[in-house]
Amino acid sequence: MKESGIGSQKIIRRKRDGELEYLPDDLTIEEPLEIRVGRKPIATTMRTPGHDEELAAGFLLSEGIVGGRDQIASISVIGDNGVDVELTAGVKLKLDSTKRFGTISSSCGLCGKTSIDAIRQNFAAVGSTDIRIDIETLLSLPETLRNAQSDFARTGGIHAAGIFGIEGELKIAREDIGRHNAVDKAVGRAFLDELLPLDGHLLLVSGRASFEIIQKALAAGIPIVAAVSAPSSLAVELARDSNQTLVGFLRPPSFNIYTHIERVIFS
Amino acid sequence: MKESGIGSQKIIRRKRDGELEYLPDDLTIEEPLEIRVGRKPIATTMRTPGHDEELAAGFLLSEGIVGGRDQIASISVIGDNGVDVELTAGVKLKLDSTKRFGTISSSCGLCGKTSIDAIRQNFAAVGSTDIRIDIETLLSLPETLRNAQSDFARTGGIHAAGIFGIEGELKIAREDIGRHNAVDKAVGRAFLDELLPLDGHLLLVSGRASFEIIQKALAAGIPIVAAVSAPSSLAVELARDSNQTLVGFLRPPSFNIYTHIERVIFS
Repeated sequence: MKESGIGSQKIIRRKRDGELEYLPDDLTIEEPLEIRVGRKPIATTMRTPGHDEELAAGFLLSEGIVGGRDQIASISVIGDNGVDVELTAGVKLKLDSTKRFGTISSSCGLCGKTSIDAIRQNFAAVGSTDIRIDIETLLSLPETLRNAQSDFARTGGIHAAGIFGIEGELKIAREDIGRHNAVDKAVGRAFLDELLPLDGHLLLVSGRASFEIIQKALAAGIPIVAAVSAPSSLAVELARDSNQTLVGFLRPPSFNIYTHIERVIFS
Repeated sequence: MKESGIGSQKIIRRKRDGELEYLPDDLTIEEPLEIRVGRKPIATTMRTPGHDEELAAGFLLSEGIVGGRDQIASISVIGDNGVDVELTAGVKLKLDSTKRFGTISSSCGLCGKTSIDAIRQNFAAVGSTDIRIDIETLLSLPETLRNAQSDFARTGGIHAAGIFGIEGELKIAREDIGRHNAVDKAVGRAFLDELLPLDGHLLLVSGRASFEIIQKALAAGIPIVAAVSAPSSLAVELARDSNQTLVGFLRPPSFNIYTHIERVIFS
């Protein structure tokens, strides 16, 4: 069952009519993943097992540990809950960075800095592009992403992240108990496939958009981010500064645009 | 506006009928809080401003940095986004622990260990008590907690955590953009008021129950944890091992019981 990220156990359920039943129930699997670089543990993240190499790659990218695909020589899975990333000869792991990481919970994505000044990563703003998305395309994305998820995932609260082309075609979809992990896996896949920067793409997340989600999109060069739920104040601020379009509460037929509306085609 | 944890900005909204409007919209504030111990920065958490001393106290407790109220001499607010905790003379900050922390996002609660073995904190299981909760009382809790929240909080996705007495009376309610922060604030308040262990109490969280939520409840000695959404596999495992009753999907008139059903009175 591990592959699917779902486990099962017996529970007592009180049904709507007040009756009790004893039945098997699905649970989203949450387990720690230790991320090592050159065999040195640098972070532990609480995640849903699966696509661990992508998760590690996306994490290292969005935390600024690696800047290009050619800096990673190999990624090996170590047992059930570990991943080791070997950097290319000559690429040094900045100790300042590694010291900043600790364990990251299933709902964390920005672990690792011990001062406020260090919160904002040094990613350049998205360049000015002609990329624009049609309103009908935008409205179609949540259903496309949901259709890529399993039944349980849709109802049980596994987060999903999808990278879409500008015509609404789903390129990569990943799920995880943590939003940031789902994004790391999707971005990590694209990174490993040398598809960055994703300047002609959109990132959709199934939940809220916090600062860290915008930051991860920025690390991948994604100019448009959409979320099914609310963005935070800092997410809006970072998106505005980074020349990223931020759409929230994308629940067809409604949505909100928080920043850089010029990339949405209304006519 | 900062006090309430809500900010405002102008957005473009596409309404259900397809019309666009330009209007002010509320946003949950997300800002970094630097937690220092004896002026040394040990962690930065992405949180909604307010009740920062409680957040720091709850964090230090649930991470095992302090074990009793008498170990904290004072907590001072530093500017808008900092808190300094002075430990009592003679109480030493274990460097092993502080080294483990980094920045904690608004959805993180378990940041700070660099090996899987260190994930499980060393809190003893909840003792065997006679504490039991009536099913009707249990069913009343989500509404009680919601009524303690502002309108925006209910709809905008701020998480809430409530500590209840066993008769269903709400003792402490706290909100935050991060679930773990809301729990840290509520538990921190009780800790500062020297109310621990909360062995006659229940913790209700508005979202999912991950490993870290159970761990924080355990740090406060809380025997019953209820969540409005799903628990994770590791949350169920920890609750079972720790002699804690775990209720999930508490959505009256239904709910699921995952562990230690003996504390729920069905008759």
